[in-house]
Amino acid sequence: MATKNIESKISSSFRRIGLSPIVQISEEAEQLASSFEKKTGRPFIFFQRGEVGFDMPAYVAQAFSDAVLVKKLTKYPKSGGAPWFKDAVISHMNEMKIEEITRDNVVATYGGQEGLELAFLQFEGCKAAAFGPIWSAMLENILPYAKFDWTLVPFKEEAGRLKIDAGKLEEVIKDVDVFYLNTPHNPTGKVFSREEMSLVNELCRKNNVLIISDEAYKDLVYDGKKHTSMLEFDGDHIISVFTGSKSFAATGLRMGYSVSRNKKIIENMTKGNYSQTAGLSTPQQHALTVALRDKESRDKWLNFFVKELQERRDIVYEGIKAISNGSTYMPEGAFYFFINLNKFIPKDIKDKDKYLLNRFMDNGIAVVYGSAFGKDFEGYTRLSFSTLEREVLKEGVERLKETLSGFSR
Amino acid sequence: MATKNIESKISSSFRRIGLSPIVQISEEAEQLASSFEKKTGRPFIFFQRGEVGFDMPAYVAQAFSDAVLVKKLTKYPKSGGAPWFKDAVISHMNEMKIEEITRDNVVATYGGQEGLELAFLQFEGCKAAAFGPIWSAMLENILPYAKFDWTLVPFKEEAGRLKIDAGKLEEVIKDVDVFYLNTPHNPTGKVFSREEMSLVNELCRKNNVLIISDEAYKDLVYDGKKHTSMLEFDGDHIISVFTGSKSFAATGLRMGYSVSRNKKIIENMTKGNYSQTAGLSTPQQHALTVALRDKESRDKWLNFFVKELQERRDIVYEGIKAISNGSTYMPEGAFYFFINLNKFIPKDIKDKDKYLLNRFMDNGIAVVYGSAFGKDFEGYTRLSFSTLEREVLKEGVERLKETLSGFSR
Repeated sequence: MATKNIESKISSSFRRIGLSPIVQISEEAEQLASSFEKKTGRPFIFFQRGEVGFDMPAYVAQAFSDAVLVKKLTKYPKSGGAPWFKDAVISHMNEMKIEEITRDNVVATYGGQEGLELAFLQFEGCKAAAFGPIWSAMLENILPYAKFDWTLVPFKEEAGRLKIDAGKLEEVIKDVDVFYLNTPHNPTGKVFSREEMSLVNELCRKNNVLIISDEAYKDLVYDGKKHTSMLEFDGDHIISVFTGSKSFAATGLRMGYSVSRNKKIIENMTKGNYSQTAGLSTPQQHALTVALRDKESRDKWLNFFVKELQERRDIVYEGIKAISNGSTYMPEGAFYFFINLNKFIPKDIKDKDKYLLNRFMDNGIAVVYGSAFGKDFEGYTRLSFSTLEREVLKEGVERLKETLSGFSR
Repeated sequence: MATKNIESKISSSFRRIGLSPIVQISEEAEQLASSFEKKTGRPFIFFQRGEVGFDMPAYVAQAFSDAVLVKKLTKYPKSGGAPWFKDAVISHMNEMKIEEITRDNVVATYGGQEGLELAFLQFEGCKAAAFGPIWSAMLENILPYAKFDWTLVPFKEEAGRLKIDAGKLEEVIKDVDVFYLNTPHNPTGKVFSREEMSLVNELCRKNNVLIISDEAYKDLVYDGKKHTSMLEFDGDHIISVFTGSKSFAATGLRMGYSVSRNKKIIENMTKGNYSQTAGLSTPQQHALTVALRDKESRDKWLNFFVKELQERRDIVYEGIKAISNGSTYMPEGAFYFFINLNKFIPKDIKDKDKYLLNRFMDNGIAVVYGSAFGKDFEGYTRLSFSTLEREVLKEGVERLKETLSGFSR
């Protein structure tokens, strides 16, 4: 009796959100893995998750431990971040040539995810646009949690590269409150050029649109290219959201921060961070401070890490070039391939994504299906190359080909 | 231009929340402290914050460090808690004689605060009641963040004890969706008896009202008494919210968990926890698991800690008995005194709380004024006895008397 009454009162946002499809696929894959391995003697291959298959750098892990055992930073955190945490972020921003950042422009968050969630939630019920495909947790969680309506703007594909369709972009931007940009981009691996960022910025500025710039993969850019932060452009209409999860192979430590020249927005995020969690825990603040401050250790780690990831990317690219017939976009950053597999799927299949997922799972491969990144991407698949050893990646790509060749039968 | 447009879209909940008055008082006190100490040669006395002035137990700190350095638990957490985390909570519940709890009844949260926030937020826009006075963060943050309307039910004072007025309680409960109970109680230190809990439970059950039971201080009960958990009563209309912050003197580590026999509610909190933060970080999950699992170390720590706190309570009680003329309620748990100082405040003072705060601050004492715990408590003050050494507590109480005696001048 009591239950029914109470359950009828569950809010619309909680009715709309789920657990991420990536999390669901991961859990299903973990359950299937051992029986697959027993049956076939081959490893189950986890291409699905944006996890990092490297130990985190020792200097950051040590700082995390020191925070508690040596520095005894175990008391209430300062909501939004301690002054020493914010100062480390400010130095790091300056290193990125982002100037005029004070403590009032910085907020500490539980990973990039809380940064995004608070950035959107303070504008609850507004309208957003973003390029599609888009990170699945935005679609499934953050946007519905914040009760947003949203529109996805597709990229144009030109000569194997993803380009912005400026006309379409402007048309959509005119009609929204917030634009979500993600560079390096999940799931395509696109790194937006300075010119592209400038175009997005100008259109947003002209139309009084706030930019929420998700720069979670900022340190993972290949071929000697560099990440451009939206904060390199002026204005108080920009929030950039950062995390240590990907840069420091520490997805489980949930160390994040956001920066905006708009103090009101940072104040709101700080109040929200306090209301939700009382603030980012003190060891997390300390570990991220050390991660950012110790430039020598950081450079050494990132040089190693980015080189390793780039080599893995190249292995996968070689393997799938043949599959895609040259039309696969080469990731310039992050650690994903987003491949259109529609031509392999028999015409009479209704639920293409389910078909793809089941066929791959049966063959010991977990991937994320395309519609997790937008309804227009059925028949696409995302492969993550960050978790696996090279030999496993090679086997994974071979098995991918093998599975696809079985589709026509 | 852009700014104004965007700022007009800030949501109503973000407009209503602030940083906790306790946080604000703490920050002000920290700024005043050094000049006060220089000027007077006496220590500034921090009676305001629910902080714990003890190092956390070594076995939990070590587990926190081991999680990262030894066990390498640095990858994505399972949202809502890992199976091993949930199993540790289930064992702990069983130890408390709370049975029939499965993994689907447990969710890991960032401290008790995220537990409360998610418990309320899923019923956004509903109506709540609670006993007043009430923890300030409920009033200033959690209730407005979740867009609740609320009513406070006053206690009756009988022979120096706080009692429930059953008539008033029923009248209010009839008209709400959620009842918030907090035992041991902040700010009064009241520990609800089993009979009182049963009364609240019966009224809520009869009226289809959900109970959110905040048991943050469950291990801090004095004079050999025991905490009763609301979960000792049956039913899927109860959520109990717990944290390691107070039990393990680790407010900065934000390790919490909530338990309900209502799986739908736990599922919602899990989805909310995922949407907000992707989940409680893996080292936090591990440290709390060890904290709960190692009963021998836990008992040793809690015996020491509770005894120390009880002795501090007694020191403060001796000191303020004279002030209050016997009408001070003796805390049975938690670590606060909530004292009515109205008789000391000159009749012509309009803003009694501001007057109290300023007089105390001028005399080197930080306290929390009464209206932070409900508008009917102007002229009250909360003193926390958990942060200070005994000698400082004694001096603090003396200075309190001295300050009050100056009021009439």
